[in-house]
Amino acid sequence: MSSNVNIPQSSVTAPTPQNTPLTNAPITQHLSRPTVPDIQESGEDDEEEPASPSAGKSGNVGQAGVSGLGPSQQAILSQLVQGRLSSLVGKSSGYIESLPVEVKRNITALKGVQVDFTKIQKEHKKEVLELERKFAARYAPLFDRRREITLGHSAPTSAEIAAGEEESRKDDGEDYTPLPAPAAGTLSTNLTKENPGAGIPEFWLTALRNHIGLADLITERDADALKHLVDIRVSYLPEKEGDAAMGFKLTFFFSPNDFFTNETLTKSYIYRDELGYEGDFVYERAVGSEINWKDEKDLTKSFEIKKQRNKNTNRTRLIRKAHPTDSFFNFFSPPIPPSEDALENGEVDEEELEDLEERLELDYQIGEDLKERVIPRAVDWFTGKALEYEDIDMGDEDEFDDEDLEEDSDEEEEDDDEVGHRH
Amino acid sequence: MSSNVNIPQSSVTAPTPQNTPLTNAPITQHLSRPTVPDIQESGEDDEEEPASPSAGKSGNVGQAGVSGLGPSQQAILSQLVQGRLSSLVGKSSGYIESLPVEVKRNITALKGVQVDFTKIQKEHKKEVLELERKFAARYAPLFDRRREITLGHSAPTSAEIAAGEEESRKDDGEDYTPLPAPAAGTLSTNLTKENPGAGIPEFWLTALRNHIGLADLITERDADALKHLVDIRVSYLPEKEGDAAMGFKLTFFFSPNDFFTNETLTKSYIYRDELGYEGDFVYERAVGSEINWKDEKDLTKSFEIKKQRNKNTNRTRLIRKAHPTDSFFNFFSPPIPPSEDALENGEVDEEELEDLEERLELDYQIGEDLKERVIPRAVDWFTGKALEYEDIDMGDEDEFDDEDLEEDSDEEEEDDDEVGHRH
Repeated sequence: MSSNVNIPQSSVTAPTPQNTPLTNAPITQHLSRPTVPDIQESGEDDEEEPASPSAGKSGNVGQAGVSGLGPSQQAILSQLVQGRLSSLVGKSSGYIESLPVEVKRNITALKGVQVDFTKIQKEHKKEVLELERKFAARYAPLFDRRREITLGHSAPTSAEIAAGEEESRKDDGEDYTPLPAPAAGTLSTNLTKENPGAGIPEFWLTALRNHIGLADLITERDADALKHLVDIRVSYLPEKEGDAAMGFKLTFFFSPNDFFTNETLTKSYIYRDELGYEGDFVYERAVGSEINWKDEKDLTKSFEIKKQRNKNTNRTRLIRKAHPTDSFFNFFSPPIPPSEDALENGEVDEEELEDLEERLELDYQIGEDLKERVIPRAVDWFTGKALEYEDIDMGDEDEFDDEDLEEDSDEEEEDDDEVGHRH
Repeated sequence: MSSNVNIPQSSVTAPTPQNTPLTNAPITQHLSRPTVPDIQESGEDDEEEPASPSAGKSGNVGQAGVSGLGPSQQAILSQLVQGRLSSLVGKSSGYIESLPVEVKRNITALKGVQVDFTKIQKEHKKEVLELERKFAARYAPLFDRRREITLGHSAPTSAEIAAGEEESRKDDGEDYTPLPAPAAGTLSTNLTKENPGAGIPEFWLTALRNHIGLADLITERDADALKHLVDIRVSYLPEKEGDAAMGFKLTFFFSPNDFFTNETLTKSYIYRDELGYEGDFVYERAVGSEINWKDEKDLTKSFEIKKQRNKNTNRTRLIRKAHPTDSFFNFFSPPIPPSEDALENGEVDEEELEDLEERLELDYQIGEDLKERVIPRAVDWFTGKALEYEDIDMGDEDEFDDEDLEEDSDEEEEDDDEVGHRH
């Protein structure tokens, strides 16, 4: 009996919301290191076999090593290979086929029992989500307080300052320096929304720029807009009874600014209805707000003035052409995963698919990091303390290709002369 | 204000029970890739600085690349470097120090608010554990059923077989072959514990050998004992009200065998009372059963017969010497993490510490995998289906050192002649 599953390519690589690894897993790399000698011993080049009592230790899944590739290239390759191996790995060496019918019936029955397990597990994971939602309500007043303080709408209490000083003492050890006493009359008083104090200027922009993945997305132009970012919150989907989609929504709150008219921008991450094989929710897709850019303020475009010559009349005119450009705000136009139909019918070019999968993974990872790490402890991202807990990768810089995560601008097909480039 | 935390080395690397990455995280590697150019631009060789509005994009934590190292070596190095960087990373570039007292007070207040967050988060994570415990009770009848079927204590029902056939159809697609009809009189009937049928012989041994990490631990000698492994279950700690330690316990059930008298062997994984920085429980230590080996049956030892010469009388006698040896059953004598005192006083040799940390990580990872992947879906490990979902590492075999995870046997100091080696 062969147990060969047709895995849709996108489910192989989609990170799971509960289980997206936040750090590298050297131990897993060790566990799954290729075991080339085993394959050679078995004398089979194109088929792996699971262990069976008669086959001894031949259960290792191996593949001849590919040298000279950086980790990210290896990851891509391994996805591709994995797709192909899915038709090889897990094929029995004949051990299961060789078993008596009675034993085969028992194995089949266990598969049946497993179906019930999966049903209960889905209930379990839904309750874990409900628990997140329940605790989100308990965290909310603390996040409200954070917002008031960062905006200067309210002065910190002496209890808050004392608790913070206690933390600084623990964090800084010998380097701890007490908060200086404010000189008389230097503190703003009677703070309200209408009469704000200093707050903490550019709190969120600074916090986001201390996150390596986000810092990569934020351009200098974006920074001017992100100075107006006053809060980020998580909420859970479905937002009301009856809505089906499970997942979470990030809401970015902005003060009035020169760039767009939206007061909030949202990014929703939606889970598939079925758990992934490992028993966790898996992302189905992400959806972002449409941004209502003010005139000529679209940060996701660069504009180019071109001379265009009419081939018949030979007259020229100036036109303004928009090109997609790098911007944090592309986060609100996430990549769209290919449909399973398109995948099955081979309508998606392999290279395109690779590129798309990488952009999807980055998008999911950034959303996950905002939800799990940045929003919960934003002050640590502001001060830099969170960086101490970042996994530091010692990989050789040379192993990485510079990647352009933006779409390439369309090939210019008109008969144009470039006149100028304006941001 | 510097926010430099003294991280105990063992907490840097301890995988978290909720969040141990099960697959490699290429995306994280990408996010945390070294950003050497940034460091060079800032003109500082020995200090990183978090981003601040004035410092632009300099928030990346980087470190000059080390080439020619495999992933596991890099991981070790990065742990070491991380330990040292903890005194560098997160130090402010002076931005925070330069802020007015009012803003500093606000930042300190946010740290105070964060203390309340951490308290609520701990409640949250405890409830997640309680949910696991609650659902473990719902899964238990299915695992009981699995045990009955594998031991042949009960015949599969036609509903179980039908559900399993349905799964095989989905899994195998075009390769699906229906379960053959049993020839008349070939099935055992009236099955009970006293009158068992064929069951599924060596179910657990086969399942464990299909897990790459476990297969590495299981020797041929171990296999003879593991043929008697009839079940593995998870339970949650504390087991009764009043016990403090949180965590989980793996129980291995054995049928009577020639090797040891224990009917069960257990391995408990205990969490620290405080959450780790990322908000997950972190392992404190693991504890295993003492195994009551029958005479000369200890699989974790190899015995050597030696001739010993008395230096004074010059007479010789034969002695039997035990050496620690590779065995799956060493899993029940897990490595003991060094105390924080010993670490702080520098009593632990750096090389020893590295070795210990690696063995601890492997031990935690194996426990985690048994709990999260093998026990929930043991039939898929038996058939090999679970292997299809394993992350396949394409790393070059040459990048890995062969590592001996066992303790070296003590240097022989007696005046011995080796006579024989007996297993």
